[in-house]
Amino acid sequence: MPKEFFNVLPPDPALAEVFKHLPAAVQAEVIPTVEALDRVTAGPVPSPSALPAFPRSTMDGYAVRAQDTFGASATLPAYLNVIGEVPMGRAPTLTLSTGAAAIVHTGGMIPDGADAVVMIEHTQATRENEIEVVKAVAVGENVLRVGEDVAEGATVIEGGVRLRPQDLGGLMALGITSVAVAPRPRFGILATGDEVVSPESAGVGPGQIRDINSYSVSGLVERAGGIPVRYGIAPDKFESLLAISSRALSESDGLILSAGSSVSVRDMTGDVINRLGTPGVLVHGVAVKPGKPSLLAVCGGKPVFGLPGNPVSALVIAELFVKPTIERMQGLKTVVRHIRAKLTRNIASEAGREDYVPAKLIDRDGETFAEPVFGKSNLIFTLIRADGIIHIPLNANGLSAGEMVEVRLF
Amino acid sequence: MPKEFFNVLPPDPALAEVFKHLPAAVQAEVIPTVEALDRVTAGPVPSPSALPAFPRSTMDGYAVRAQDTFGASATLPAYLNVIGEVPMGRAPTLTLSTGAAAIVHTGGMIPDGADAVVMIEHTQATRENEIEVVKAVAVGENVLRVGEDVAEGATVIEGGVRLRPQDLGGLMALGITSVAVAPRPRFGILATGDEVVSPESAGVGPGQIRDINSYSVSGLVERAGGIPVRYGIAPDKFESLLAISSRALSESDGLILSAGSSVSVRDMTGDVINRLGTPGVLVHGVAVKPGKPSLLAVCGGKPVFGLPGNPVSALVIAELFVKPTIERMQGLKTVVRHIRAKLTRNIASEAGREDYVPAKLIDRDGETFAEPVFGKSNLIFTLIRADGIIHIPLNANGLSAGEMVEVRLF
Repeated sequence: MPKEFFNVLPPDPALAEVFKHLPAAVQAEVIPTVEALDRVTAGPVPSPSALPAFPRSTMDGYAVRAQDTFGASATLPAYLNVIGEVPMGRAPTLTLSTGAAAIVHTGGMIPDGADAVVMIEHTQATRENEIEVVKAVAVGENVLRVGEDVAEGATVIEGGVRLRPQDLGGLMALGITSVAVAPRPRFGILATGDEVVSPESAGVGPGQIRDINSYSVSGLVERAGGIPVRYGIAPDKFESLLAISSRALSESDGLILSAGSSVSVRDMTGDVINRLGTPGVLVHGVAVKPGKPSLLAVCGGKPVFGLPGNPVSALVIAELFVKPTIERMQGLKTVVRHIRAKLTRNIASEAGREDYVPAKLIDRDGETFAEPVFGKSNLIFTLIRADGIIHIPLNANGLSAGEMVEVRLF
Repeated sequence: MPKEFFNVLPPDPALAEVFKHLPAAVQAEVIPTVEALDRVTAGPVPSPSALPAFPRSTMDGYAVRAQDTFGASATLPAYLNVIGEVPMGRAPTLTLSTGAAAIVHTGGMIPDGADAVVMIEHTQATRENEIEVVKAVAVGENVLRVGEDVAEGATVIEGGVRLRPQDLGGLMALGITSVAVAPRPRFGILATGDEVVSPESAGVGPGQIRDINSYSVSGLVERAGGIPVRYGIAPDKFESLLAISSRALSESDGLILSAGSSVSVRDMTGDVINRLGTPGVLVHGVAVKPGKPSLLAVCGGKPVFGLPGNPVSALVIAELFVKPTIERMQGLKTVVRHIRAKLTRNIASEAGREDYVPAKLIDRDGETFAEPVFGKSNLIFTLIRADGIIHIPLNANGLSAGEMVEVRLF
């Protein structure tokens, strides 16, 4: 293990340490279902009724009693009397007795006495109000049963689910026009650094750089379901950093500081965080490259992160720690899905830390390749040129060209 | 090939037929970069300046002339005079001559005359204003060159890219505070069917069902970057359907009709679409299961879709045709990424059509399995219980348990 990683926690226990100090309960707010795309359900949603609520035809054809068709074939058809037509959108008034059939359209209600539908293609009109059925149907054939989609009282959607288009459709199908979801956590975002200026400012002098992290991290917070609130750039002075941080945290559910990159500024950030509430800084540094000098904290029940100043480190750490925390605050049951790809080049690494290397995905001859994008962690454009990051596990000694790797889209 | 699929187009040529009739050019609007997350760039963005704009230190340490350290080691250190400190956020006023060093912090500007940085860990303070350097540095070591991140005039971000958090950061780093993106296409969405009622309506009578497709398709349009505008439910009458469709299309960039499921209503939908503009319906049915009876059209340069009434068919067809069309209207260069998983059960299929089977992803012993969710295409909950859809290619005769399949997250 490289000496510099001796005293820092691997990512999983580091994140667990943060979670341990966050409130266990997830809040809930009720919002209209039509506005709930991508929100996270606050609890399981039970079905108020069966779907469908009545037996429906899945075909255009004739509602029949299945036993009237048993044995029917092209050479020996069954003859049925057509006693009427099922209107769309209304309950049929007719009732089928033996030997009877009723015209029914796809989605139409099955009339009393009928238990199956013969497709129109398997019938022939013979005389007026009479058909030949040339193929037998079984009981229930071409019919949706009551509750076949969802039974009354069944769980429609579990809690902790990020609502997708089909989920909204399913809720509306049951008349569930409002739904309890987790509130979107508000995250204050504050940059520090005497060399950092707002991208909006007219002149950027020599020695100055524009703020990157406030904007990239805002995007990440938003994609994770949070609401980013930027508090600008604080000077590298303890009192002013503490004052702005206190206000930001009091107005938010969490706080993200993009700390300056030098050791002295980093130390100051840790001191400020410890003044924001207890228990304060829980993790001083993580066994991750890039991003080792990160601070993970909980202050008065709210998560606080001190990200490194380097834009690549800041965003990788935000992906690994901030994003799952925001998801956890919404109760989301996350599964991170990776894309498998073949590595195009060797990557060096050292056991004892997790490495994340930006990579471009290239599709060639039906195969997906991962091409590492090398560059210093100060270079935001290594992430812009990449489609994701390759994860090199804690105890691997690098990866070889041709190996299959997992790429986290990013 | 199953007979019913004789006269219908496979998905790829069907989509190409739609694209051929859409305007080639993508529109552009200029918006603030801070609001541009997930928007698609309307063209390549050139860099107005080099990044970084001045040489910067990547470490806390001393700016030096590399050749003054050559040969330095713990036993034979190089001695350098510390002539001052580089302030953060300002250009240093000092200039290094031979044998000199200047304190520099991470992110600080490299002073004139210096060409490398010695990490503080590789130095020892000896006397006042003197250090021992115990490790040689090469020219450029621990220094970010001017333009190392991006050169002046280089393309920052290509056109047709959906902006991610890091892309926003990169734009802001260069002071690009507004960006030209494709407008979000507005899609009118209209349900039809005498049996369909609004989920908001108090009473749902026997024979009636609530509208699902307007809401699931709205979510899909939104996720693809479009703006869904719902026009409610039209009765199954030619004149009223035509009137509402005309108005919806005139107010939108495209139109999606969720047609009734019965053949007669479907035929009427096709007639209505043909009255909305030329060339009208281009594709009558696609070789896809579920969703064969779909209509793809372009009317007066705007795409129009007639989706099947079944909620699963409607959403699968929207995923396969509506989503790529919305993305194409924004100029997005799409690559659909799939998750590889091991199939848990056999799936039947027939050559001559593409099958899409909803599937749940299950992680077990470090492997990802795809468990098909079987059910009629009327059952919206088959999609709700699924994480994605398994694609069975046009000419496959089913898939066997244990095969590796590609799952499209959905």
